[in-house]
Amino acid sequence: MKTENQALFEKFHLLKSNAGTHSPSITTIKSELPELEIKVDACFLSNPYATELFLKYFRKELIDTGEINRVLEFYPSQNKEISQLVGGHLQIDPSRIFIANGATEIIQAIIHNFVKEKLLINIPTFSPYYEFALPHTEVIYYNLKKEENFRLDPDDYISFVKENKPHTIVLINPNNPDGGYLSHNEMIRLIQELAWVPNIIIDESFIHFAFENSSLELPSIVSMMDQFPNLYIIKSMSKDFGIAGIRCGYAIMPPDKVKQLLKTGYLWNSGGLAEYFFRLYTRKDFLKEYEEVRKKYITESLFFVTELGTIPKIKVYPTKANFVLIEILNGKSADEISTELLLNYGIYVRNCSDKIGLNGQFIRVATRYKLENEYIVKSLREVFHK
Amino acid sequence: MKTENQALFEKFHLLKSNAGTHSPSITTIKSELPELEIKVDACFLSNPYATELFLKYFRKELIDTGEINRVLEFYPSQNKEISQLVGGHLQIDPSRIFIANGATEIIQAIIHNFVKEKLLINIPTFSPYYEFALPHTEVIYYNLKKEENFRLDPDDYISFVKENKPHTIVLINPNNPDGGYLSHNEMIRLIQELAWVPNIIIDESFIHFAFENSSLELPSIVSMMDQFPNLYIIKSMSKDFGIAGIRCGYAIMPPDKVKQLLKTGYLWNSGGLAEYFFRLYTRKDFLKEYEEVRKKYITESLFFVTELGTIPKIKVYPTKANFVLIEILNGKSADEISTELLLNYGIYVRNCSDKIGLNGQFIRVATRYKLENEYIVKSLREVFHK
Repeated sequence: MKTENQALFEKFHLLKSNAGTHSPSITTIKSELPELEIKVDACFLSNPYATELFLKYFRKELIDTGEINRVLEFYPSQNKEISQLVGGHLQIDPSRIFIANGATEIIQAIIHNFVKEKLLINIPTFSPYYEFALPHTEVIYYNLKKEENFRLDPDDYISFVKENKPHTIVLINPNNPDGGYLSHNEMIRLIQELAWVPNIIIDESFIHFAFENSSLELPSIVSMMDQFPNLYIIKSMSKDFGIAGIRCGYAIMPPDKVKQLLKTGYLWNSGGLAEYFFRLYTRKDFLKEYEEVRKKYITESLFFVTELGTIPKIKVYPTKANFVLIEILNGKSADEISTELLLNYGIYVRNCSDKIGLNGQFIRVATRYKLENEYIVKSLREVFHK
Repeated sequence: MKTENQALFEKFHLLKSNAGTHSPSITTIKSELPELEIKVDACFLSNPYATELFLKYFRKELIDTGEINRVLEFYPSQNKEISQLVGGHLQIDPSRIFIANGATEIIQAIIHNFVKEKLLINIPTFSPYYEFALPHTEVIYYNLKKEENFRLDPDDYISFVKENKPHTIVLINPNNPDGGYLSHNEMIRLIQELAWVPNIIIDESFIHFAFENSSLELPSIVSMMDQFPNLYIIKSMSKDFGIAGIRCGYAIMPPDKVKQLLKTGYLWNSGGLAEYFFRLYTRKDFLKEYEEVRKKYITESLFFVTELGTIPKIKVYPTKANFVLIEILNGKSADEISTELLLNYGIYVRNCSDKIGLNGQFIRVATRYKLENEYIVKSLREVFHK
């Protein structure tokens, strides 16, 4: 490694260690390490075409009209007013909807308020699910097995749950960081057989990238909510709609839980832009265009993953999300490969060394624009042909 | 009342009752009651000159440059990265700073996590302080006395606290909804004499409108934090900086409390625009201009309150905030007067009938632009000359 790269490398690792079990944001990297040129942010899990679509509406309806002034100056609507809107759109009783400042706020709200005793987490996972657990909560882990491509085996999982009797279970579908997917029917079977578990949390933050037929239709479990009073569905809007900076998400949960949360908090937790987004989210014109960019992005992601699969000395795990988990098979570590990609190619990937349940040989790579995907494939091919 | 007004009146009261102990937002009113023309929103407590200043920077630095795309697309920095910035600006150890999605998130965080047993609230007050209390918390009230202009009497308050031994006390300074102000020296005396109370919450959300000398300097208690390990200072940015739609605030509290909150939550609770605002908040160029609009607004507010004081059949309570509590002395109720102002003059004021500690004879009127203030004075003069 060149000396200048060594210095950069050390600074970058310091930022990474300050960010805990998350990656330093692109904002932080740009402000702390301006000398580092990031060409492709493949750490960030987001549909860039959806961002463009949102920005088109944002510029036309808020900036060009001057309406933005009102959006930033005044208080946004209260939580339950926004849930009325979203409920109408989803055809779900608004009393079941909890509007939040990003999905992490929902995870915190549920884990802090409704999770008693044993919390079962599948690993590898999105770390806030266990990090947000309060001291009185016992966290137990179910290992997704590498030899089964980190895919959840419903029978084995059901036996594990029966044996360990957790109070709360969490199913992220598709799962982060591996992209493993439980089909709609498998999910229904799971929640039917586990109907006795007091809380079942299903995180559908990446469901917009999943599909079960060639018309790429959405297989969400939301329509089943009425039948299962123990379900909590969590939905981030950051990934599928490409608006992580706006912070919005929602959950669907039992009405008494929503009532309990709103009784003592979460009054004005949506910003003005989040409210604008939620209003767009209920509009036919926006959703028609969104559906096009969703399918375009999925199609490009499918091509990207197929191309990655032709690179030697890596294993590409099956995914139905907008990212892919890659195992490094050339003897190098994830630290080495992610640093090489960053410093020599300007490609920022997720080094998964800090993920419980993964050893130091895994990186996660997000799908981005078509040209960026091509650059990632070309660069990885170079790195692994050495 | 004319028939069309009667129908509007009924619709408006329904909105108001749906908003609980808060007022329906201007966004809600505009979307639910488009036929209602609001000329002046004197319910909303915010410096409009500060909004203009923020928007100037926002347009120049985010919109014209295209930088807004990045701000909305990517994850903002984590909580503790933003507290580093704010800490540097305030010359306070960042480990004492908790960055939040508006002051209501801070109130919720403190009340839910650190308030045990007895919570003492002065009434009238900002309702989330008692509404957010969890079932195990006993809320007790200290009555600010009408005959003392709702001004807190330090000696009487200290005796009350000694007698009732609350675990947590809350002092909003200046107080909402009456604008009553405790001087810097009175506040220091209070916190010295009550140093044995486990938690003292001081809400300085309106402190930017207070002053103790003719150069209108800021009398914040922040500089005293190190000497009092039981203090929590809460600071909304919505009012003084005119950006309620962005949702940002911060608290200064004991480092172990900040650590406890961040250990199990609040990871990405600032949006991209909140992060941009916090960066502005640490910049000399912005703060220099802000100081000018702050003083301009205070000066206009002083004039406004003086003019209101010349109107017969109302009592204007002394204030050091950007609003004034008005008692109605012509025999009509706050319901009647606020409806008359809204329907006949397009002036939206805060009807204080739902405030514990106030009977139905009080309205709260915010300072707005100079011309709007003049229109409010003229209209109130008409209403009370009838």
